[in-house]
Amino acid sequence: MLEAAGKTRPIKKNQPLQNDLLLKALQGEHVDRPPVWMMRQAGRYLPEYMKIKSKYDFFTRVQTPELATAITLQPVDIIGTDAAIIFSDILVVPQAMGLEVEMNEGKGPVLPFTIQGMKDVEQLIVEEAHFHLQYVYDAISLCKQELNGRVPLIGFAGSPWTLLCYMVEGKGSKTFDKAKTFCFQQPEASHALLQSITTVTIAYLKEQIRAGADCVQLFDSWGGLWDKEDFAVFSLQYIEQIVDAVKEEAPVIVYAKGVWHSLPELQQTGAAALGLDWCNTPQTARALTQNKITLQGNYDPVKLLQPVAKIKEDVQQMINAFGVQRYIVNLGHGIIPSVPVEHARTFVEAVKSWKA
Amino acid sequence: MLEAAGKTRPIKKNQPLQNDLLLKALQGEHVDRPPVWMMRQAGRYLPEYMKIKSKYDFFTRVQTPELATAITLQPVDIIGTDAAIIFSDILVVPQAMGLEVEMNEGKGPVLPFTIQGMKDVEQLIVEEAHFHLQYVYDAISLCKQELNGRVPLIGFAGSPWTLLCYMVEGKGSKTFDKAKTFCFQQPEASHALLQSITTVTIAYLKEQIRAGADCVQLFDSWGGLWDKEDFAVFSLQYIEQIVDAVKEEAPVIVYAKGVWHSLPELQQTGAAALGLDWCNTPQTARALTQNKITLQGNYDPVKLLQPVAKIKEDVQQMINAFGVQRYIVNLGHGIIPSVPVEHARTFVEAVKSWKA
Repeated sequence: MLEAAGKTRPIKKNQPLQNDLLLKALQGEHVDRPPVWMMRQAGRYLPEYMKIKSKYDFFTRVQTPELATAITLQPVDIIGTDAAIIFSDILVVPQAMGLEVEMNEGKGPVLPFTIQGMKDVEQLIVEEAHFHLQYVYDAISLCKQELNGRVPLIGFAGSPWTLLCYMVEGKGSKTFDKAKTFCFQQPEASHALLQSITTVTIAYLKEQIRAGADCVQLFDSWGGLWDKEDFAVFSLQYIEQIVDAVKEEAPVIVYAKGVWHSLPELQQTGAAALGLDWCNTPQTARALTQNKITLQGNYDPVKLLQPVAKIKEDVQQMINAFGVQRYIVNLGHGIIPSVPVEHARTFVEAVKSWKA
Repeated sequence: MLEAAGKTRPIKKNQPLQNDLLLKALQGEHVDRPPVWMMRQAGRYLPEYMKIKSKYDFFTRVQTPELATAITLQPVDIIGTDAAIIFSDILVVPQAMGLEVEMNEGKGPVLPFTIQGMKDVEQLIVEEAHFHLQYVYDAISLCKQELNGRVPLIGFAGSPWTLLCYMVEGKGSKTFDKAKTFCFQQPEASHALLQSITTVTIAYLKEQIRAGADCVQLFDSWGGLWDKEDFAVFSLQYIEQIVDAVKEEAPVIVYAKGVWHSLPELQQTGAAALGLDWCNTPQTARALTQNKITLQGNYDPVKLLQPVAKIKEDVQQMINAFGVQRYIVNLGHGIIPSVPVEHARTFVEAVKSWKA
């Protein structure tokens, strides 16, 4: 398949799903066991991924539908997850809006030109931006064909606030002080920027769904840097807009890391599910969301380095605590590169062999 | 005073405190307004500090009582805080235990030799370690003399888990995966290490109090990386030991960043106060601690970059929300270097001029 890189295969009608556990969990339908997938499941812990990584740079992997498809399918084939998530990056959106993004392997992303004020915001591409992401839609269509109905395919995007972080700060940060300062000191420009990203993201996610994504996840990786009040102002309201615009077309999972304080508000966005980090206990998360929504998570990724017997025990305990219904087993954040494949597989297998 | 660097002044009997607001708040006594101080208040936002910094390297500043005293007193003189906190670093403890610590200005600490297993733990200095920190006790005594009873002096130490992070990882990290992995994969060695740090820290804090510290703060900067269950195992139980051993000699403030989920358990440690980051609302924090303990915090440090009128308004609102009694106004984390001195002063002044 890799030989075909660059040419997009003709799109065939999608097969009905053989494993629709994820969609059932998202719709709150009865399941015999919860579905399982892992954030960053197509990634550096897989030798098969490292092989592709050694041959093609990051954006070649992302922009070549055949490569993105091969990577997306790896965890389904190798560790047997109940869903695939399209291999891509949240920063393709700032890129499509006209900002340069460099991906330095091992060092994270760098944006050489950052947003510093309203003038920069006004120069961004908005209405046309989602047309520049055709390679993502092509990858999704190709993935759906290759999956041939085995498991659902998840599309995704970064939340407006999380994308603003990189667009203003220009690189990763522990605290994103520059991005927060921008919001406090230039509220008009920051809201204009957040609104522009929101507009692009809505069009982008709708196109992903049209191309075949069965559901989508919104990553608010840096939402937890705000207090509750500022989270409402600078992140939540834009998440609400996106969920509202997209939810009729496919279920939306909202993963807002560290945002335990606004779980009640996130539950009311119309999202089908909320992703949780491991700092929430199942009991607290169920209470804060009034047991009204599907929850996803929240195993500490580092715990996948424990002995496999302990991983099995933890998974059993986690399912018991969250409950089988309205629950999607996942990590609380992305899988880390040092996890042995066997441990990742154990995590998935433990869910599949779960017994009440 | 700086000329005397290297020689410790003779210790005189301490003056009674003219401003004992902090101690009253810690003891739950009635106050007319809450006390205010700021984490990392003696730091890079002060031109007077930068002047000393340009002449002496980090450990010279820390190890020379006259320099540490000059730096400690700056925020009291310049912005008028209700307490001084001794200028030092949490990593002096690993240093006293025999590990080399390099402080690279702007890049953070590096420990060239890290703890990798039980054998390394066994080679650490434990019983004698606190004797190597005489320069801290001398700085505290000198500070108390120079303060001459104006405001109380706070001593401090890092929590055992937070120190383990650096001793195992060897440098700062967003997630301290290596340190967490060490705890999961070598529980025996990790608990031996945590216990050794605990033993040293108890002796160290007692000596700080003997030298004149009016109260002490324990910084668990990385407690928030654990889930509730693991926090109890790898951090809380050691914090409990320390508080229990020290609380009869001076009030203890426990600041565990990101550890909202264990506020009820932290409230029961016997600490006089709990420090909060800004992700807690006053209402939630009061509810989680059953309104039984003094709370300290929790202004987002980035908000000090807002216009001064907004800072004043925020402080007023924060005091109203936490309540005047059993409350210490502070930031939710350390002050950032880009804050104008005038804004820091506004924060302090707003507390002093607070009106119900």
